[in-house]
Amino acid sequence: MTRDDARALDRIDPLASFRDRFALPEGVIYLDGNSLGALPDAVPAALADTATRQWGDRLIRSWNEGWIDAPQRLGAKIAPLIGAAPDEVIVGDTTSTHLFKAIVAALRHDPTRRTVVSEAGNFPTDLHIAEGAVACVPGARLTVVERAALADALDDDTALLLLTHVHYKTSERYDLTDWTARAHAAGALILWDFSHSVGAVPIDVTAAGADLAVGCTYKYLNGGPGAPAFLYVASRLQEALANPISGWMGHAEPFAFQDAYRPAAGMKRWLVGTPSILAMASLEAALDLWTGIDMAALQAKSATLFAILADAGAQAGLPCVSPTDPSARGSHISFRHDHAYELTQALIARGVIGDFRDPDILRLGLTPLYLSHEDVWRAGEHLREIVATEAWRDPAFATRNAVT
Amino acid sequence: MTRDDARALDRIDPLASFRDRFALPEGVIYLDGNSLGALPDAVPAALADTATRQWGDRLIRSWNEGWIDAPQRLGAKIAPLIGAAPDEVIVGDTTSTHLFKAIVAALRHDPTRRTVVSEAGNFPTDLHIAEGAVACVPGARLTVVERAALADALDDDTALLLLTHVHYKTSERYDLTDWTARAHAAGALILWDFSHSVGAVPIDVTAAGADLAVGCTYKYLNGGPGAPAFLYVASRLQEALANPISGWMGHAEPFAFQDAYRPAAGMKRWLVGTPSILAMASLEAALDLWTGIDMAALQAKSATLFAILADAGAQAGLPCVSPTDPSARGSHISFRHDHAYELTQALIARGVIGDFRDPDILRLGLTPLYLSHEDVWRAGEHLREIVATEAWRDPAFATRNAVT
Repeated sequence: MTRDDARALDRIDPLASFRDRFALPEGVIYLDGNSLGALPDAVPAALADTATRQWGDRLIRSWNEGWIDAPQRLGAKIAPLIGAAPDEVIVGDTTSTHLFKAIVAALRHDPTRRTVVSEAGNFPTDLHIAEGAVACVPGARLTVVERAALADALDDDTALLLLTHVHYKTSERYDLTDWTARAHAAGALILWDFSHSVGAVPIDVTAAGADLAVGCTYKYLNGGPGAPAFLYVASRLQEALANPISGWMGHAEPFAFQDAYRPAAGMKRWLVGTPSILAMASLEAALDLWTGIDMAALQAKSATLFAILADAGAQAGLPCVSPTDPSARGSHISFRHDHAYELTQALIARGVIGDFRDPDILRLGLTPLYLSHEDVWRAGEHLREIVATEAWRDPAFATRNAVT
Repeated sequence: MTRDDARALDRIDPLASFRDRFALPEGVIYLDGNSLGALPDAVPAALADTATRQWGDRLIRSWNEGWIDAPQRLGAKIAPLIGAAPDEVIVGDTTSTHLFKAIVAALRHDPTRRTVVSEAGNFPTDLHIAEGAVACVPGARLTVVERAALADALDDDTALLLLTHVHYKTSERYDLTDWTARAHAAGALILWDFSHSVGAVPIDVTAAGADLAVGCTYKYLNGGPGAPAFLYVASRLQEALANPISGWMGHAEPFAFQDAYRPAAGMKRWLVGTPSILAMASLEAALDLWTGIDMAALQAKSATLFAILADAGAQAGLPCVSPTDPSARGSHISFRHDHAYELTQALIARGVIGDFRDPDILRLGLTPLYLSHEDVWRAGEHLREIVATEAWRDPAFATRNAVT
């Protein structure tokens, strides 16, 4: 692959025009959109309108002019990205809080089953939250096993299988349909975490028959730092499951101000408190970018970007820990290196922003909406040079940040 | 009270200059700042900087440049408003989620006590969440009694007394010191909800010896619609209590990505998922307004504004349900009327925005930072005229909104 090859790919890229809809700083090749997506151009204006007109001028009246329905409206915009119906997704709270609600609800659904099964090395908050959730249900326990032992861990005590669709470190992707079927065959529900896959790969919860899912919106969906997360509950389960964090926004009649909790119908019962409307406004502007995007084209471009960096890594002699089969991975690529932290910092010093994941992973996100093939080719050249010249040995690159 | 009297009060008002730091629409007298505070002028610029520079230009690097400490930094800015130490308050999540965490934690603190006591007619989410929280702790129960029966309801099974400091409907205020002492005398912890009192009346949790508190920041603190809420835990309890929603942001080392949860020291353990940085930015700009505000002057002005409206209501023959003693109430005034909904709508049609609370309450918020005495006097004149002429009988005022 040469620079000209990369440029040729850019000329025929059906997604190339999306780059102009993002604000990207000069001199930066941003390969961390899998951690914090870039700023869509539409966001600052949406925030200004929400603050100045909706809040400042309309004040409390805005609750009747679009704010109160934001969790459902944004949920309906996320639904097509995961193959759900518009009324199966709601937005608000954090991924962690949604996980807590969904795990407790699933455990209470079938009191004859007491175990939540998940994977060792899953994204930490999934395991941390599961630990907290099982402590809220008498007799419940969490079983964490290596990926290879998951299938055998499912039995007639399994209430819930909790899996992250795309692994945050390695980029390994579970087969959505196969693993949903495995959970169901054991009589369990399945809860998918799409944080590292939504907006990165095609997802179809309906075809897979998935029960529950959560996902982050500040990575590939570009909703902004700490943007509110989403929760999916299959319509067949919506009346059967109850939200343990029974806040007033999930009440059937929140403005009747009744003492006793009575859950709303549908996804509304999963709301807890009043969501941040400013955070919702940013996310909504970001979601509107996705209208009409061909997910097959997105995945094809992701695969090509991956191939460019995989090639550079191979030339540099870096072991790639991500799967070679595009259908078995997400949209990031990870390399192992004994000094991955310093390597990451050396790349950042050259304007190539990726991230380090403890203890030895360099992780590079491939976001097809705003990266060109040439960007990624140039990042690969930097990577090769830094490894070849051992430029990462500069002591300046060893200084640790609070957030790595 | 005449218009000239009101103007004379405005001329000597030590808080008068704060009005210029808010964006208030022309033709509106805003008496709903107890539900959604007005827009501080500093907010749109703070949002634009957060979106465009911090997110757009600095991207992921901003987590190391101020974002990661936002929950603690904003907590330290709220602390003086409730008499807490800077490291006793944290910001993030919603009031409802904080209530859930605090109630479950308090119940687990002393397993020999199983009852949470609260007040009938408390703000609904407090009761709803308490209902959900007790269901997460074996044997725990919620006892809800009328205010007059609260003292007798405390016994040696009481783990927690949950009270809202200022009542959202009537404006009645509990004596913070007395009720904290009552809970402690019974051997229970106390959890205060300051949603309707923070920024409205002086609060001193340290002097009162309070254990736990939560509060809303989108009312008198003007943080924006759905702004993140705060949690206070007295330092003596911080290591003894555990967060049941054990998310990664509350982990001792969130970026070590360990499978097992290990709580952070101090208030950080109460964090759950990644907070919205845009919501935090708006709130921080709003909190910066409070530097140097004399809470005694705030309370004195609130009392005068109250007297102006109480006088107008009395002339209109409206029963006032709020206490006459300023030290026994918050900073809103409520009147009872059989057609309070229509009365509220008739006021709104004249640009006087208050709100209706089911079934028969007209509620008017008195925010000393941005209301003048003349504003409130004019609102009182409208109220008198609408009642005297029965202008609220216009059928147009009976149309119900989604959010009332």
